[in-house]
Amino acid sequence: MDNKREYIYRIEPGDADFMKRATLMSLADYILHTAGEDADRGGFGVRDLNLHNASWVLTRMALEVERMPAEYERIRVTTWVSAVTRAMTTRNFEVFDEKGVRIACAVTNWAMLDLSARRMLDLHLLPAYDSMTQDFPLPAALPCRLAPLSGGREYEHAVVYSDLDFNCHANSVKYIQWAVDTLPLELLQQKRFARTDINFIREARYGERLRIVAAEEALAFEIRNPEREAVCRIAFRME
Amino acid sequence: MDNKREYIYRIEPGDADFMKRATLMSLADYILHTAGEDADRGGFGVRDLNLHNASWVLTRMALEVERMPAEYERIRVTTWVSAVTRAMTTRNFEVFDEKGVRIACAVTNWAMLDLSARRMLDLHLLPAYDSMTQDFPLPAALPCRLAPLSGGREYEHAVVYSDLDFNCHANSVKYIQWAVDTLPLELLQQKRFARTDINFIREARYGERLRIVAAEEALAFEIRNPEREAVCRIAFRME
Repeated sequence: MDNKREYIYRIEPGDADFMKRATLMSLADYILHTAGEDADRGGFGVRDLNLHNASWVLTRMALEVERMPAEYERIRVTTWVSAVTRAMTTRNFEVFDEKGVRIACAVTNWAMLDLSARRMLDLHLLPAYDSMTQDFPLPAALPCRLAPLSGGREYEHAVVYSDLDFNCHANSVKYIQWAVDTLPLELLQQKRFARTDINFIREARYGERLRIVAAEEALAFEIRNPEREAVCRIAFRME
Repeated sequence: MDNKREYIYRIEPGDADFMKRATLMSLADYILHTAGEDADRGGFGVRDLNLHNASWVLTRMALEVERMPAEYERIRVTTWVSAVTRAMTTRNFEVFDEKGVRIACAVTNWAMLDLSARRMLDLHLLPAYDSMTQDFPLPAALPCRLAPLSGGREYEHAVVYSDLDFNCHANSVKYIQWAVDTLPLELLQQKRFARTDINFIREARYGERLRIVAAEEALAFEIRNPEREAVCRIAFRME
């Protein structure tokens, strides 16, 4: 392969917020959807891995937004895999508007999970997967490792049916939603999510009462399970 | 016009629940999206009405499901307008699978709102709109008028950013989500939403702390605003 593969989407009314722009969640959703489609196309999708009782797990994500696309706008998402180690692979994304201007980009890290043993698998078990990698420069800095949060304002959320994905744990995009929903509406109106770093640490299961700890001024968040373990950490830089 | 117009969608992983079937919310979303697309196509969409400072408001919905479509399944949604009175118009939907089998249908009622005065407009103000109506039989019984609920288990939900639509009030599909999320997972696994009736009564605004009152055995729900007024009533029949 010598080209980034590309996928076209339209920002539908259901993807847009009251300002008629895509939400950070819907942009992240299109990006993760692209990952799924492209892995499928390469023969390494969740459906393929499921046959071997394995699945992809998103471990980190960095998402940079220059301009949030508007309702009814068409976006083109390109994607490529840039690295494969035993434990982790990196998948990159660039988002272009109809004029060909790059308006967002993302770098994601993924691990492969054995669904029975709930342990990580060696990515070299997929010998052909290396052929997926392409040698383009990273579109943004790698996702940061986020430090534990000591304190902040606390919110509670019990994981409900509509939060669940096919793995029966809370969907990655929901974590972003819980953090974004704690922010003041004025901030969301006045600024954009210039960069978002997310560390996915543990699964959040149905019925679990999570604590969303928000150090609001730092725009840093930690989502904890009832055992007080960090499930996810998120940091926003808004401009 | 002598044909029902049709729209094709695919049930994406993000539309599916942990059973890899469309959620009631995503099915309702595709149906309401179809309403928007078809009204747009006829020149009576929200964007057209907005030019006159007006908008469509969904007042009632009845949604019947014979079989919930599975992840990756393609569905064909047909739609037509069957009635226009001064106060209300009826839009109908049928959902077919790839074999041409009807798996769901819906009947919806809409009013036209003056966005400044927040009052309903006479639909005969749209003289050409009558040409939208088509004389096909209703696919299901009209949405029921639901009675007030006296008591039930209560849940609280504050309207957050991700709940808001372009009108800056909670999106219609969110009401369904709040009700569905109170149901036991076992019930959602074992039964389908044979029929859902919804009455949309008032807008729910940002920051409002709503009470979701659930008479769970009757599968009847009333969502109330802080003034204890009913915002929405929902009734499910599960089979």
